[in-house]
Amino acid sequence: MPEKFNNEQHSRQACTESLIAVKDALYVLNGKWKLPLIIALSTGPLRFKELQRTVEGITPKILSKELKELELNDFVTRKVYPSIPVSVEYSLTAYSKTLDNVIMELRNWGVQHRKRIFSKSKQSKRQAVR
Amino acid sequence: MPEKFNNEQHSRQACTESLIAVKDALYVLNGKWKLPLIIALSTGPLRFKELQRTVEGITPKILSKELKELELNDFVTRKVYPSIPVSVEYSLTAYSKTLDNVIMELRNWGVQHRKRIFSKSKQSKRQAVR
Repeated sequence: MPEKFNNEQHSRQACTESLIAVKDALYVLNGKWKLPLIIALSTGPLRFKELQRTVEGITPKILSKELKELELNDFVTRKVYPSIPVSVEYSLTAYSKTLDNVIMELRNWGVQHRKRIFSKSKQSKRQAVR
Repeated sequence: MPEKFNNEQHSRQACTESLIAVKDALYVLNGKWKLPLIIALSTGPLRFKELQRTVEGITPKILSKELKELELNDFVTRKVYPSIPVSVEYSLTAYSKTLDNVIMELRNWGVQHRKRIFSKSKQSKRQAVR
C-alpha cells in the first residue's frame, strides 16, 4: 500500500524534525533552573539575593552559572548600578517573551500532573483501608 | 495605591504558582532525553536498539535508566515477547499524550530559535565582510 507507506514516511519525517527542534530547545533550556529563573524575573528585575530567595533551593554558585548562560542566550540582561556597595540587577529581555507558551504549557502540565499524583495516592490509601 | 499593590501581590502569587508547577513538570521530565524518547515512540512501538538509533547520541546505559524512569512515571510500557531470543518493545501510554502541547510548544520554540541563530550568524558574517 503506497499510501500507508507515504503516511508512515511522512510521520517519520515529522518525528525526526520534532526530535531535532525539541533537542535544540532543551539544549538551550537545559537543567532544572533556567525556566524557573525566567519565571521569577517575570514580575520585574531582581537582585542576585532576591533571585536566590525566589527560586528556592539554588546555590549561589549554580545561580551565577545559570545567569551567565541566560545572559549569553539573550534571555536576561545584567545591569550594574554604581552605588556603594555596587548593586546588580537582573531583568528579562524581549526575547525571553518567546518562551511564554512553553512556560504556560509546562505550568498547565505540572498542575494536572500534581493533581493526578494526589488522586492516585488517595486511591491507594483508600484501597489500603479496605 | 492599594490597587497597584493588589496587582503586584496577585502577579507575585501567580509567579509562585507557576514556579511550583513548572518545577514539578521539570522534575518529572528532567534531563535532555525524556521528551526526545517520547517523540521517538510517537510513531509506534520500538525496540531498545531501534530507540537508540532514533534518538541519536544516547548511550545504552542512559537509555536503560531513562526508560525505567519513563515506565515509573507512566509514560512508557515495556512488553516482552517470548521469542528466541526474547524481544522487548517499548510503547507510549495514553498518559504520555498529555505532553502533546508541551512538546508542540518546545518544537515551535526550537524551530524559531534555530532560525534566529542562523540569521544572527549570517548578519555577523555580512558585517565581517564589510
